[in-house]
Amino acid sequence: MREMLAGLGNARHILSMCDYIVKPNPADERLTEKIVGVDQNGDVAETSVVVERPLTLFLNKREIVTMMTIGDYPNYLAVGYLINQNMLSAEDQILGVDYDEDIDVVVVRTDRETDFEDKLRKKTLTSGCAQGTAFGDLMEKFGEVDLPKDVQLKTSWLYALTKEINTTPSLYLQAGAIHGCVLAERDTPLLYMEDVGRHNAIDKIAGYMALHGLTPENKIFYTTGRLTSEMVIKTVQMGIPILISRSGFTVWGVELARQAGLTLIGRARGQRFIALSGENRIVYDANPSDVSDEPRKLQRKGSTGGQAA
Amino acid sequence: MREMLAGLGNARHILSMCDYIVKPNPADERLTEKIVGVDQNGDVAETSVVVERPLTLFLNKREIVTMMTIGDYPNYLAVGYLINQNMLSAEDQILGVDYDEDIDVVVVRTDRETDFEDKLRKKTLTSGCAQGTAFGDLMEKFGEVDLPKDVQLKTSWLYALTKEINTTPSLYLQAGAIHGCVLAERDTPLLYMEDVGRHNAIDKIAGYMALHGLTPENKIFYTTGRLTSEMVIKTVQMGIPILISRSGFTVWGVELARQAGLTLIGRARGQRFIALSGENRIVYDANPSDVSDEPRKLQRKGSTGGQAA
Repeated sequence: MREMLAGLGNARHILSMCDYIVKPNPADERLTEKIVGVDQNGDVAETSVVVERPLTLFLNKREIVTMMTIGDYPNYLAVGYLINQNMLSAEDQILGVDYDEDIDVVVVRTDRETDFEDKLRKKTLTSGCAQGTAFGDLMEKFGEVDLPKDVQLKTSWLYALTKEINTTPSLYLQAGAIHGCVLAERDTPLLYMEDVGRHNAIDKIAGYMALHGLTPENKIFYTTGRLTSEMVIKTVQMGIPILISRSGFTVWGVELARQAGLTLIGRARGQRFIALSGENRIVYDANPSDVSDEPRKLQRKGSTGGQAA
Repeated sequence: MREMLAGLGNARHILSMCDYIVKPNPADERLTEKIVGVDQNGDVAETSVVVERPLTLFLNKREIVTMMTIGDYPNYLAVGYLINQNMLSAEDQILGVDYDEDIDVVVVRTDRETDFEDKLRKKTLTSGCAQGTAFGDLMEKFGEVDLPKDVQLKTSWLYALTKEINTTPSLYLQAGAIHGCVLAERDTPLLYMEDVGRHNAIDKIAGYMALHGLTPENKIFYTTGRLTSEMVIKTVQMGIPILISRSGFTVWGVELARQAGLTLIGRARGQRFIALSGENRIVYDANPSDVSDEPRKLQRKGSTGGQAA
């Protein structure tokens, strides 16, 4: 049912009746552990801590990478990683995604051998290390993307989204030390994924979108993380025209966003934000002074740090 | 002069007369750019944004990795990266570190060919991608490290350090979107490095320590970033017995810290902190209620985000 709704991206009257399609599940016992330590007074203190576990990804017979993840959506993470690294293309048909929890392995099977194996072998020999290679691949499709120009971002949506996201129960609010990414449409958040790395969170959203056929053109992407080059590249390659963060920018991130015509909004907290690219999509329909500042207890402090227990 | 002082790690009477050996230089025009955009009112707004630039690292003739960095200390970053990835060992003598700014390349030259080339080729063939390999190498020395047990962390030092670090002029305070790491001794911060990735910041400190002969046993490491497994592994392998963060924990980070006997303190903000490993080194000589909460304008909000301009 929810997956059916997800396909109806423009059916606003239906979406507005929905809550998130996917949202954090802080009650999931696999994702946090209670750990006992001492606090500033030397007293015993128990606190919630986020789990990170390795996940090794295979594309057909080829081992690709081992990621550290909270492990809630290995299948979406696997598919989204491959798409965002340009290791899967639109022509590749995914026959299956198998996750084996006992050995922390996920295998994505496609109908044909991808050309990634050759590509990897060649690049590994020439540039030595796939960390560089991965980044090279990441840029591969960037120049070809044509983001829609006629979509809008109303500031009333932006304020409604950030308020909704900040008050949604999450692993962040429970345990801290985690990043969040949200796919939204107008003022409605659809997918809210969290993970120890912000790139895992965006990859899980990319995987969900691919496997459930969500279209990107009319969507808004929100991240708690910084607007670095890599974040901009992924958003553009996913075809999403608007990227919002409560964090700051890097120069290269801004340059790439301008090159691609991405609407790039940072430091979105309470009534404030600043847009450094694609400002033309913004419609100022809200009065910022009507927006209250974030309550202090809901502010994300530190580098995704959480509240002391 | 400063480098001479750095070698005198235990000469407390000299150190206490010093400010930082290395501290952020927010006035350095290479590190930030002024960018013009629009704010929440649709008004033109100018803001400081941190630069990130690629740096390709060679070890002798072998290309190792391309990193994104602010680029302030390419030589320290290069050496620290190689040490922390176990691509250089104590036996390797560094003959030179050459940085070519025009092509964003840094070359570290050693007296003998390291065995890393063979290691990389082998692992690349077996596990497909050096992203996994890098992590494997990272753990290589972890089990062998014996952290000193008799060092102390006075809570008065912890409070003095965090206050000093938070009020030191930095790229973070100017532009946001950046991580900071600090090497300290007792209540005195010695090296304060910033970078777009927290691992670059710790690697720059490792490189500085190696090239200037700073000893780790009596040091304290502070990071604005989360206490993940990778952060714990690097701190332990650098031989530093105490790791403090204003951010939160991950379960695996805590497990590794306990295994290594590392003192691991998180969520250190204002008077509060929580220790989840190595609590025995903590000496409670300060009254937390004498410590004021952080002024709101100095709080690090968001995922290393900064203040709106």
